[in-house]
Amino acid sequence: MKSFLKIEKHSDFPMENIPFGVFLNQDEPHICTAIGEFVVDLNILESFGYFKDCSFADEKPFSEAVLNKFMSLGKEARVEARKKIQELFLENSPISGGKGFLDKILFPLEKATMLLPVAIGDYTDFYSSREHATNVGIMFRGKENALMPNWLHLPVAYHGRASSIVVSGTDLIRPSGQIKNDDKPAPEFSKTNQLDFELEMGFFIGTGNELGKPVKSENAFEHIFGMVLVNDWSARDIQKWEYVPLGPFLSKNFATTISPWIITLEALEPFKVEGPKQEPEPMDYLKTQGNPTYDINLEVYIKSGKMSEPYLISKSNFKYLYWNMAQQLAHHTITGCNTRPGDMMASGTISGPEKENRGSMLELTWRGTEPIKLPDGSERKFFNDGDEVIIKGYCEKDGLRIGFGESKGLILPDGQ
Amino acid sequence: MKSFLKIEKHSDFPMENIPFGVFLNQDEPHICTAIGEFVVDLNILESFGYFKDCSFADEKPFSEAVLNKFMSLGKEARVEARKKIQELFLENSPISGGKGFLDKILFPLEKATMLLPVAIGDYTDFYSSREHATNVGIMFRGKENALMPNWLHLPVAYHGRASSIVVSGTDLIRPSGQIKNDDKPAPEFSKTNQLDFELEMGFFIGTGNELGKPVKSENAFEHIFGMVLVNDWSARDIQKWEYVPLGPFLSKNFATTISPWIITLEALEPFKVEGPKQEPEPMDYLKTQGNPTYDINLEVYIKSGKMSEPYLISKSNFKYLYWNMAQQLAHHTITGCNTRPGDMMASGTISGPEKENRGSMLELTWRGTEPIKLPDGSERKFFNDGDEVIIKGYCEKDGLRIGFGESKGLILPDGQ
Repeated sequence: MKSFLKIEKHSDFPMENIPFGVFLNQDEPHICTAIGEFVVDLNILESFGYFKDCSFADEKPFSEAVLNKFMSLGKEARVEARKKIQELFLENSPISGGKGFLDKILFPLEKATMLLPVAIGDYTDFYSSREHATNVGIMFRGKENALMPNWLHLPVAYHGRASSIVVSGTDLIRPSGQIKNDDKPAPEFSKTNQLDFELEMGFFIGTGNELGKPVKSENAFEHIFGMVLVNDWSARDIQKWEYVPLGPFLSKNFATTISPWIITLEALEPFKVEGPKQEPEPMDYLKTQGNPTYDINLEVYIKSGKMSEPYLISKSNFKYLYWNMAQQLAHHTITGCNTRPGDMMASGTISGPEKENRGSMLELTWRGTEPIKLPDGSERKFFNDGDEVIIKGYCEKDGLRIGFGESKGLILPDGQ
Repeated sequence: MKSFLKIEKHSDFPMENIPFGVFLNQDEPHICTAIGEFVVDLNILESFGYFKDCSFADEKPFSEAVLNKFMSLGKEARVEARKKIQELFLENSPISGGKGFLDKILFPLEKATMLLPVAIGDYTDFYSSREHATNVGIMFRGKENALMPNWLHLPVAYHGRASSIVVSGTDLIRPSGQIKNDDKPAPEFSKTNQLDFELEMGFFIGTGNELGKPVKSENAFEHIFGMVLVNDWSARDIQKWEYVPLGPFLSKNFATTISPWIITLEALEPFKVEGPKQEPEPMDYLKTQGNPTYDINLEVYIKSGKMSEPYLISKSNFKYLYWNMAQQLAHHTITGCNTRPGDMMASGTISGPEKENRGSMLELTWRGTEPIKLPDGSERKFFNDGDEVIIKGYCEKDGLRIGFGESKGLILPDGQ
């Protein structure tokens, strides 16, 4: 699909992508998409009547400060909007010659201030990578009891904190809290010495479900708007002391970083693939057909203050996940839990079969026993102040590349 | 404080209470208070200019559909609003003779349809009753290891699901999910056979805190708007199978019922009391002075379809809790987690020193080994379909009674 806008061959945002986000246009949040190197202001396009033929025109979803209303309109509106935007930016489109108008709606992507695109109601974090659960299990419970008995029967998850989800580029303050060292009789108050990332992806609910009415796995994808990259920052030393018996709390809720662009399921459609073989066979409510997951390449980079270029520390793929998004959503709602437009569900750390696929420092350095060497000569067991952590993601096939952009966060020293 | 409205001696809502809620006035949500047997429509009072002298007048907080905006205005606005409302309804107040006007703003409490009063951003559930944690610990791990090592050092908590918090009077559909019986090799899909209540109380954040800026325990009460009764419904059999290693998920997120009236900290002020002695001494960030908790009587009733009157099954008190609300909020934010107006934090099950103080069927029937006998001749280990569960709460001292009203829910059969 060829646009009158110049799009580099390896751009994350070709005409086939049309992601949705929110950026700051003269101090106002405006809903936008990205094409090539440009942010396209959908708020202004809507105000000029470019969506007036769409079935959702009266709703004016692009005049909102967040995407929730657009999300709530469902798949049909999303497909229609994508098609309309693609038409507008095709080669020889009527708007291609209107320099004055294009100046009003196009902004350099590189300089745009992106905002959190969604008012996130509830955030759930799954634990759906068999390799991650196994690695953690071996470290903490030994090889024999690595996977908990329930793990192969249901997609384990817990509720996360929605308020502290931040958009890529937001700095992270190193948290302090209670830490109990094995050689001490009592916990101490300290900044965390085990600040970690978790390589995850998240999906957003488009149309929700009512309380008491579970989403069936065969309809689950109809409820999903699109996906983002997620860094579920973790303080391992705080986690270790606090997490029994109710799960992680403060060790995870100080910040979760997401990438600013939501990539729709329509853009990801060409990259659908089979998931891992599931044995034992899932219960009926968890059964899915066809190719229920996506081939999405994931990369994690670190950049210390002394480094000029980010350094790759992990490569993984969304397709490694044992439980797919339809199974996650069907499970989440099976007891009747309702979901709302803009709720976010994350995958859990996405590790893979090889050592290089490990999605956390905990696994990459095997609890700090095998530090990572950086190009600046330093070593890392966990992160130092001044480190920037960058997650990238993209799909690639038959010359088509659909990218996710990036999720990055710089670690600042403890402010207390 | 005497009103021109008739207030029964044992009313939950004397002039000293002035709770805040939202009710349905001709199909529109209106913010309101309760005095005696009346709902007072604050939306209409505001539109008639009765708050025009208040410092918050321009904000028009009572024209909203939920209390979040009013909550965000802080303690000063709340104190001012309470005072203004009390003045309006005093004996011989100018409005006392205006029958036509009073008909516009007063509605019989008994017939009012109350709504969820807050758009709840995040919901956190603590685990702050030593007696409850000990009871559960003994049942599941034996007397020696009843309390986990961290329990006396920090207020354990986990994130709950905000979307499924419902207002009193909302029916509950018996959930289904994965259940693994000890005598079976694999889990099965079934409706829950261990549907339970948890007697809790919750508090709402008024003014929040920014990401990275913890709330100090000495300022914590300034951030709290008020309190409600909470029933944290639980499916024990689903919980037992799913909860390792990340905590309860589906077994809790199918519904949480709250009472419709938020009782402000100002109304509760006369009932402040000392908390339990804390040993070991809490860390500095968890230290609180003075009387940091409240003497609030709590009662739980059950009413089966065959019973004409509710039957008391548990009596407890908020003051039994080991960790107080200031400690909970200081802990919640110590790693930098932000909070927002309308966030809800619940106490965890409030059990007490005596058997009759146990705040769940799990404890009352000691895992079903000591069933409760009901007046209709039947027995309960956990709840049956058709059972209604009612929580009541009130403070009483020197002739002053401040009540919470009630939180009730009727259990309907599994709909699947």
